[in-house]
Amino acid sequence: MSVLIVGSTALDSIKTPHRENPRLLGGSASHAAVAASFFSPVKLVGVVGDDFPKKYLSLYRRHKIDLEGLQQLEGKTFHWSGEYEVNMNNRRTLLTELGVFETFTPALPKAYQASEFVLLANIAPALQHHVLNQMRRPKFVVADTMDLWLNIALNDLLKLLKRLDGFVLNDSEAHQLTKEDNVFAAIKKIHKMGPKYVIVKKGSHGSILSGPRGFFVCPAYPLSKVVDPTGAGDSFVGGMMGCLATARGPIENHLRRAMVYGSVTASFCCEGFGLNRTTKIKRSQIDQRVKELEKLTDF
Amino acid sequence: MSVLIVGSTALDSIKTPHRENPRLLGGSASHAAVAASFFSPVKLVGVVGDDFPKKYLSLYRRHKIDLEGLQQLEGKTFHWSGEYEVNMNNRRTLLTELGVFETFTPALPKAYQASEFVLLANIAPALQHHVLNQMRRPKFVVADTMDLWLNIALNDLLKLLKRLDGFVLNDSEAHQLTKEDNVFAAIKKIHKMGPKYVIVKKGSHGSILSGPRGFFVCPAYPLSKVVDPTGAGDSFVGGMMGCLATARGPIENHLRRAMVYGSVTASFCCEGFGLNRTTKIKRSQIDQRVKELEKLTDF
Repeated sequence: MSVLIVGSTALDSIKTPHRENPRLLGGSASHAAVAASFFSPVKLVGVVGDDFPKKYLSLYRRHKIDLEGLQQLEGKTFHWSGEYEVNMNNRRTLLTELGVFETFTPALPKAYQASEFVLLANIAPALQHHVLNQMRRPKFVVADTMDLWLNIALNDLLKLLKRLDGFVLNDSEAHQLTKEDNVFAAIKKIHKMGPKYVIVKKGSHGSILSGPRGFFVCPAYPLSKVVDPTGAGDSFVGGMMGCLATARGPIENHLRRAMVYGSVTASFCCEGFGLNRTTKIKRSQIDQRVKELEKLTDF
Repeated sequence: MSVLIVGSTALDSIKTPHRENPRLLGGSASHAAVAASFFSPVKLVGVVGDDFPKKYLSLYRRHKIDLEGLQQLEGKTFHWSGEYEVNMNNRRTLLTELGVFETFTPALPKAYQASEFVLLANIAPALQHHVLNQMRRPKFVVADTMDLWLNIALNDLLKLLKRLDGFVLNDSEAHQLTKEDNVFAAIKKIHKMGPKYVIVKKGSHGSILSGPRGFFVCPAYPLSKVVDPTGAGDSFVGGMMGCLATARGPIENHLRRAMVYGSVTASFCCEGFGLNRTTKIKRSQIDQRVKELEKLTDF
């Protein structure tokens, strides 16, 4: 099975205390699509401008990402610029130029509408709704989000939650959404908002799945150096969905392992700027780290 | 085998937004000793004043804790008072009355000096040294610490690190000690300071062991309500050492599982004020949660 991924496709200029990296390939859909591509075919829905470098189209194609749903419009590609502090934990946005993204309306090619696995990567909830409205009968729909949408599009997001199988967010967003400091108490409240599966990302502390079979505590791969965490959360959920799309039988049987594969894919993402490291690895390196994680968590 | 535990024995007055709990049994050695007692006999070294409630001596005895090393002196028992905020993460100290603890010099009864498993629970590093000076040939020595000693007794602590098998500290202390934000980079530096095993506690995110066989990512038991986290770290290391003292063969073979037992014992500690919950559980409840954790982390 292939995965349909909709989200932002952007150029990221990332500054750290050590260097500047202008106009890297970025955006939630780019990170998620490349991560998913290690496991299954990917159909990408997004928008870029006429300044979008050809080398990035080639990069998508090298990862066998179907680009029929990638709109190329006159104008500028969404450009985000951010700066990390020394500890790589605090990030501040220097610049956001929406460009063609400002008026983006995701239109699904006919061949995409019957997709069974759908990842609504981080993008405005209204656009996530718009994608679902065009789908036939997806088997498993997961959405990611960010604090911005909790602040400016909460109603759209709450309506979306009722249409999802799985909802992914990070721990601070879970607190913001539920006013619960305890992550397990927050998860309980989020289930009541709709999704059967809730996944809370905790960065270097791993992630937590909650579903009908209870909790799963998913570890993060230990990294002694993080070069650039941008896109790690997108890589996690992209890898997870790619992995799920290849599995047979009930989703529930595969979700934990899919999360571990997503977690490991995200670890590679953190080891380079933008997609620099992720695009250089092979599937066998992911499998290797999953094996290591098995050993690292065995007791 | 029994475990020798030295540390503070105190009365804790703990305030939360919901209630006040005056003069509960507390202190690093009390929490560690009760936790260890579920697994092995415990020898306690500490000091209390003549105001120390008899019911707490009975409590120790109910847990079969050997009190030959517990000095009872004229004066007041160490009294700590603290207040938690609504989210239970931020704590501020309202009052510290050292009492008889101010001039405490741990003197080891003869029968204690040949102990093989030694836990130097959180207490001034100079006193931790003083205990080690009285020991014959301990098999496995672990020390815990706190930010206070990093601030006011760093030299003593650095000398202590060279005398330990294992060193336990929390993530913020690891950053403070090494100036490394990345926990795995911090651990590498701490190994160079002496200890073969380094354990970093991350509260509700679990803990990390680093040793000759690499890392172990130890999960925390999921709690949807934390009543009072005071003493959780002491319970963790106490439970771990109690568990290790019962194991046969090389320590390394048992350390991971011992940490999981410690982690679960700490989860009970968090569910009541002071030692209220921990003293009401049975060993079988600990075993039950360990089994649950096996399932919660399996993939």
